[in-house]
Amino acid sequence: MNKISELLKIKYPIIQGGMIWCSGWELASAVSNSGGLGLIGSGSMYPDVLREHIQKCKKATNKPFGVNLPLLYPQTDDHINVILEECVKIVFTSAGNPKKYTGFLKEKGVIVVHVIANEKFALKCEEARVDAIVAEGFEAGGHNGFEETTTMVLIPQIKKIISVPLIAAGGIGTGNSMLAAMALGADAVQIGSRFAASLESSAHENFKQEILNTKDGGTKLSLKRLVPVRLIRNKFLREIEELEQRGESREQLLELLGRGRAKKGMFEGDLDEGELEIGQVSAGVSAILPATQIIEEIIMEFNQAKNRLNNFQF
Amino acid sequence: MNKISELLKIKYPIIQGGMIWCSGWELASAVSNSGGLGLIGSGSMYPDVLREHIQKCKKATNKPFGVNLPLLYPQTDDHINVILEECVKIVFTSAGNPKKYTGFLKEKGVIVVHVIANEKFALKCEEARVDAIVAEGFEAGGHNGFEETTTMVLIPQIKKIISVPLIAAGGIGTGNSMLAAMALGADAVQIGSRFAASLESSAHENFKQEILNTKDGGTKLSLKRLVPVRLIRNKFLREIEELEQRGESREQLLELLGRGRAKKGMFEGDLDEGELEIGQVSAGVSAILPATQIIEEIIMEFNQAKNRLNNFQF
Repeated sequence: MNKISELLKIKYPIIQGGMIWCSGWELASAVSNSGGLGLIGSGSMYPDVLREHIQKCKKATNKPFGVNLPLLYPQTDDHINVILEECVKIVFTSAGNPKKYTGFLKEKGVIVVHVIANEKFALKCEEARVDAIVAEGFEAGGHNGFEETTTMVLIPQIKKIISVPLIAAGGIGTGNSMLAAMALGADAVQIGSRFAASLESSAHENFKQEILNTKDGGTKLSLKRLVPVRLIRNKFLREIEELEQRGESREQLLELLGRGRAKKGMFEGDLDEGELEIGQVSAGVSAILPATQIIEEIIMEFNQAKNRLNNFQF
Repeated sequence: MNKISELLKIKYPIIQGGMIWCSGWELASAVSNSGGLGLIGSGSMYPDVLREHIQKCKKATNKPFGVNLPLLYPQTDDHINVILEECVKIVFTSAGNPKKYTGFLKEKGVIVVHVIANEKFALKCEEARVDAIVAEGFEAGGHNGFEETTTMVLIPQIKKIISVPLIAAGGIGTGNSMLAAMALGADAVQIGSRFAASLESSAHENFKQEILNTKDGGTKLSLKRLVPVRLIRNKFLREIEELEQRGESREQLLELLGRGRAKKGMFEGDLDEGELEIGQVSAGVSAILPATQIIEEIIMEFNQAKNRLNNFQF
């Protein structure tokens, strides 16, 4: 059996990444109903909005689902209260120190998984006694690590130093890449970009179409002086880069950036002025499909690729 | 059978990357004698030095071997003359346009493989009728692409648009990562960093030790305004970055860089003032082993990982 399937009580070891402005209850429940684990991305939700999404998700599926909780917002405590009040049993924390909430959440019976991008935080996760770790490579969309370690290199590195189950993320969107991640030592995969462009994603239609339009080299790990984030190369990104090249300070950058750019791009569909977070794997996404079809395709490809590998005999 | 093993007449689909200052005749012949394909890295050799290495390699092995030929040096024509006079039958070209020499070399009966890092050059390779393509991801050491596409994303992308056999490079140094590359669609792998730290590598002992010392995040894709190259983070790299942040021009950077920095670091062992080209996978290299032991380990791991994958049944 598979350690992650057992831990999370899911059929397939496929986790849909919790993404701001993309993964509300529609996507999370669709993924969970299809045998994966759906995650509600709380990063773009006020506490009462999160509560509404959890309640709707519970109605839409009787399968396990979870909430992704980035630890970089001031309202984290409120989010945690909602999660506990609504009896959500799985939380993926990210973008912060796993020691802060893991013990508290686990005492309340919550399964805690933390997202990391380097060895240092993987070790912190083990000390914090998380139930599993997501290791996310440089190619992933959204927030990322300063080390720029890719999935191909990160997964074996992390596997070597931890004992809890390991979920690979970054560059994964097909059965072949799922199999590759497992060859590297992962027990499961987390897939973001491909689900961001799914039928049930709450992203704006313009953003979904732009994901399909993204080509080789169409994204870039940016904002390295603030917190590195992978974005589609658009007008907004070019302006940021000009500011960075002019040597603007961290504070000036933050001010000029303004607020709400991710909402503007991903939820309101302003492809010029908005911040469009997506992974490199978007270059391979060519259709907006229902989550269930995405998962079926991935499992079919996975099995085909596994059979193909058996032809290599040495 | 394996397309690359057939094309190159080798036992294992493992190619030792042709690396400046590391892969002379000792390493190339050791790899070829062990069932892989050894490549002499001509990029750091004058034409008469290349001739000497080819002649010694022919004496040291009766198995196929080749020469890596970066197309960015003024002496390329002289190198090609030496290669043809010495009857080398396999050439890996890189860092340039595959259309320039492929036709000429193939007319002379040479198998031509070209190294690329993006879709655009993969298509050029097909038009140039190369015999195979090496697709090299962002995590690879040395020269790299502007797109920063990682191996996990690049291999499936390239596989989709080409028909010739595909060799994956970047982030590969173990049997697990070799299997991952093949799950992604590669027919073979090219391994550099691990062989740079092998017993038969001609790199300076200091550089080999520094490869073992390299940790997670210890390398960086640098010199992006000249030609991107992945280097160990040392004093030399910090100085370069200061110059870049000051906004120095391309020409000023080139002048301040000076010449011979790679030789100084990799061949003469000056870890402060030298340029140390190595891949991210160096963080996982922990011993200086003979090439034959490296290959045996990789094949053993590959077979074990393949059996392990068969436990995943959906």
